[in-house]
Amino acid sequence: MEITLHSPLDMHLHLRDGDMMNLVAPLSSDFAGAVIMPNLVPPVTAPGAMVAYGERIDAAMGHADFTRYMTLFFTKQTEQQLLIAKDTPGFFGFKLYPAGITTNSEGGVSNLADAESTLKMMEEMDIPLLVHGESHGFVMDREAEFLSVYRTLAQKYPKLRLCMEHITTAAALELLDEYENLCATVTLQHLIITLDDVAGGALKPHLFCKPIAKRPNDRDALLQAALNGHPRLMFGSDSAPHPRCNKESCGCAAGVFTAPLALPKLAEIFTRNNAIDKLQGFISGNACRIHKLTPTAKTVTLHDTPMAVPTAYRSNGQEVVPMYAGEEISWSVKH
Amino acid sequence: MEITLHSPLDMHLHLRDGDMMNLVAPLSSDFAGAVIMPNLVPPVTAPGAMVAYGERIDAAMGHADFTRYMTLFFTKQTEQQLLIAKDTPGFFGFKLYPAGITTNSEGGVSNLADAESTLKMMEEMDIPLLVHGESHGFVMDREAEFLSVYRTLAQKYPKLRLCMEHITTAAALELLDEYENLCATVTLQHLIITLDDVAGGALKPHLFCKPIAKRPNDRDALLQAALNGHPRLMFGSDSAPHPRCNKESCGCAAGVFTAPLALPKLAEIFTRNNAIDKLQGFISGNACRIHKLTPTAKTVTLHDTPMAVPTAYRSNGQEVVPMYAGEEISWSVKH
Repeated sequence: MEITLHSPLDMHLHLRDGDMMNLVAPLSSDFAGAVIMPNLVPPVTAPGAMVAYGERIDAAMGHADFTRYMTLFFTKQTEQQLLIAKDTPGFFGFKLYPAGITTNSEGGVSNLADAESTLKMMEEMDIPLLVHGESHGFVMDREAEFLSVYRTLAQKYPKLRLCMEHITTAAALELLDEYENLCATVTLQHLIITLDDVAGGALKPHLFCKPIAKRPNDRDALLQAALNGHPRLMFGSDSAPHPRCNKESCGCAAGVFTAPLALPKLAEIFTRNNAIDKLQGFISGNACRIHKLTPTAKTVTLHDTPMAVPTAYRSNGQEVVPMYAGEEISWSVKH
Repeated sequence: MEITLHSPLDMHLHLRDGDMMNLVAPLSSDFAGAVIMPNLVPPVTAPGAMVAYGERIDAAMGHADFTRYMTLFFTKQTEQQLLIAKDTPGFFGFKLYPAGITTNSEGGVSNLADAESTLKMMEEMDIPLLVHGESHGFVMDREAEFLSVYRTLAQKYPKLRLCMEHITTAAALELLDEYENLCATVTLQHLIITLDDVAGGALKPHLFCKPIAKRPNDRDALLQAALNGHPRLMFGSDSAPHPRCNKESCGCAAGVFTAPLALPKLAEIFTRNNAIDKLQGFISGNACRIHKLTPTAKTVTLHDTPMAVPTAYRSNGQEVVPMYAGEEISWSVKH
């Protein structure tokens, strides 16, 4: 059995930089393109730095058959800065992090009220705003507590393309249904796991991410929305590599590395649930329609031949452990 | 400033066996005694094994000034077995684990209905039942889901001394108030931390335990009950050493090691909260009254001189990382 996907997109990807990027970037090359997160150290705030980062990504990918949608770290940019960003080739949108909420987000925004004029201009210029939507509250409540911010933004800027990144709760899905100007990405792991998988048996650092996996009803709601072909729900892996030593230590960094196995696992999930016809929209169609994207024309064929997931990916002293390390996925990319 | 405690007791302690026991047992020697958990491999089910384990503990402690209250793993014992247990020197009660719920509990009970006759006889013989009260449900709900089992047992066996071990929720405290025949232990860490400390920032394996730390309102309720001198709430550290390599790995074992710092930290907490007068009851008085204990007469003096918590305790190839490793506690035991 085979599935052919046209120009699959990863709408939320961390490629890091340097040796780590050289290791992980080629592992996303089955995708036609990806939205690249700007949370390097220091974060990518200037168009010049973004262009240079994009060129380093191209070099790391090793081929041109990959469209990178670059983002800039949101810092309440001025009109002049917005205009320059919009005119910079490869620019896609701004990523907003509440200050200090995840890896390298210390420079994020702490008060959105100060950002009003920037958001108004982004609405007028039709620049998307991608948001890491978590409060600083109790870990299981952070996304739910942030929904009121999304609601305010959706009401205040009805034409702003507002993307709730990596949603993890049934409540976020309900909000998505309330406002037509909201869209959302969801990761592979949040379609599959709950907090039980992270901390219900032994503690599993390689399944620890932010936002943390939530309750079974949240996971079930996200999976059903994807399988039902929710028109404003897009795949964004949030694949976030960390060196093994930063995951298996006294203070494990947040992030699940799924890039190399995301397409096979999605094929497995969608076929098992008799929803193959909904996969194209989830993996590309919704994003292209919402964001008016025309990625590289690329066809990826998946077949029901097992993929043995490596225990780790290694290169140049870098070592990253993927989700399903050492396990088998019943589908694979046909190369 | 000094505090003098009389015969402090740890009503829930894991001493393990072999080299690990030789390392950790002396670190509990400021206590006058402790209730010793039976979840070795294999579990301690026979009085003979219990006596032998008790003798190994005495040897590991290195002195006789410590009363060990030994427990047997509950396995729906017969009347004959109960009688023998009750007559065995050092025997305190039975520990019931729902099957497979925590470290080495695979041989636990899966259906309490089968245990009726044993429980009835224990009630008649006045043998305490200590229960690890968690369902097999979602990790944040396991204790709450088990409360109906406690309720059933409390109603059905009104004279059974039923101890809810290491409670972690405000709901468990409410149940405790409903039934006079219930008592409970609470750990050091559950008076202090929430899931935020385990998984809200970086993932912290050394704060990962079962039951997992819950929500802020749960932690606050437990702390207030201890500080207010709840008459049926007793200190039980559940200090549970694991080798460092089993904590800092891809599948971290559950357990927080607090034995060597529990008394100083409790002194710090109770003094900071102006509740010094409630510490004696929490650390010994309630347990002695409820369980009619007469531990070794022992006086422990704590003073407000800082304790530097080691980064690890090591001996004979064993290495255990304590809570507050490398940090300072503002009180210490005066030796």
